[in-house]
Amino acid sequence: MSRGEDYFHKLRAACAQRDSLLCIGLDPDPRIIGTGVEAAIDFCRRLIDRTSDIACCYKPNAAFWEQYGPKGWEALAAVRELVPPDVPVLLDCKRADVPNTMVAYAAAVFDAMQFDAATVHAYHGVDSVSVFTEYSTRGVYVVCHTSNPGRADLQHLHCATRPLFMEVAELTTRCNAHGNVGVVMGATAPDEVALVRHRFRDLPFLLPGIGRQRGAVEATVRAAFRADPASCLIAVAGAIMYSDDQRLAAASWRDRIRAATRV
Amino acid sequence: MSRGEDYFHKLRAACAQRDSLLCIGLDPDPRIIGTGVEAAIDFCRRLIDRTSDIACCYKPNAAFWEQYGPKGWEALAAVRELVPPDVPVLLDCKRADVPNTMVAYAAAVFDAMQFDAATVHAYHGVDSVSVFTEYSTRGVYVVCHTSNPGRADLQHLHCATRPLFMEVAELTTRCNAHGNVGVVMGATAPDEVALVRHRFRDLPFLLPGIGRQRGAVEATVRAAFRADPASCLIAVAGAIMYSDDQRLAAASWRDRIRAATRV
Repeated sequence: MSRGEDYFHKLRAACAQRDSLLCIGLDPDPRIIGTGVEAAIDFCRRLIDRTSDIACCYKPNAAFWEQYGPKGWEALAAVRELVPPDVPVLLDCKRADVPNTMVAYAAAVFDAMQFDAATVHAYHGVDSVSVFTEYSTRGVYVVCHTSNPGRADLQHLHCATRPLFMEVAELTTRCNAHGNVGVVMGATAPDEVALVRHRFRDLPFLLPGIGRQRGAVEATVRAAFRADPASCLIAVAGAIMYSDDQRLAAASWRDRIRAATRV
Repeated sequence: MSRGEDYFHKLRAACAQRDSLLCIGLDPDPRIIGTGVEAAIDFCRRLIDRTSDIACCYKPNAAFWEQYGPKGWEALAAVRELVPPDVPVLLDCKRADVPNTMVAYAAAVFDAMQFDAATVHAYHGVDSVSVFTEYSTRGVYVVCHTSNPGRADLQHLHCATRPLFMEVAELTTRCNAHGNVGVVMGATAPDEVALVRHRFRDLPFLLPGIGRQRGAVEATVRAAFRADPASCLIAVAGAIMYSDDQRLAAASWRDRIRAATRV
């Protein structure tokens, strides 16, 4: 029932079972946890052991594994296996290329590595994003509005009557024949989260930037959430990974997010 | 003199020594060359042996290696070692994320894997692209205008007075304190190549889409080239990789490109 099961179905079930919207990032930083890819695997094994009844999703960021060089992808495969089968694993890889190349990226992420979902960029257009979304049982989040200060450079450019990130959100709905598409919305900008939510009532959101990037969790949850747990998947990485008590931190974030849905 | 040497210096020297603007893609397709990552390495070894006095650059596309799963990155490291030290190797990986994550991607590409150059997306803005360009001895190509039909969906949107891809080109010049930045311009659209060249006279171009994507090589070279060999790096992958005589195909593309610079 784990691999190949519909991603959003699996996500909603994990959310319901844990009463949680918390997605935990698996982004090992060798400067914090010590060098060597074995240390990264061990670190994630402990983190998953302590939090898998709290997190409804895990999100390894490909960059943090690739920095270990060729051993990084082997470790990523090992870590993917550490997650209990009822919890989806989302690879945050933000891939984007021409369709022919996206076929290879999708084969890597969904076939070779068996991730339940992935993040992509839309800059190449519908034909490229659709290569990923054609995997109808897997989830795809399109990067729409990000949490870093530089987001304004392009994402806030006005194209005709609305900012570029609204065009990106619109584009994702054109790749959604299988109902398996959402958008990444940085949690540092709740106003933009509200704008996209207002226009696209049913689009699932993945919301990173909480914790060390100082995203506004309550305002973000209020802007994003609407009954469906898939509407508001909140991703927290460093603030849980590097806390003194990971389990306590995970439970605390889960509770804070949950409380915000009930205001 | 190879690793760590300034990328554009190394590229120009390789171009001059071979009188060539030809960059050859290393994008193994298991459906064509047979399965197994060893087959991909052997295939690239033969291709490099046959063409390294013709190509001024090699460009592995990360996707085609990642599709082999965890062994793919090991093979990518092995193939990187097969290229003669005076020829730069450019990883076509099109990475893009928030600055903190770009630090890890850059560590992967430039430190762990020792590539001379890489491709990135600009959607996150100047702060993210700058993480890559701060590696002053490495080259960075920002994806500006692509070769696939879907490029029009976002890239041709008009932002105020000009299309988005012109904004992206402008953005790259703001990340160019070290003179190590260029743009990726798909060779299927020579008119757009000419537009960007007209506005940005000194920006290095990487031009993929020649060959199987049926880019217009003569028109593209005429639009892009201006004396400096780094102004017009033409990337050909499948049309050389999968020809019956790779060496003949490489020499033929080199000559055709060279001839177009002299019209």
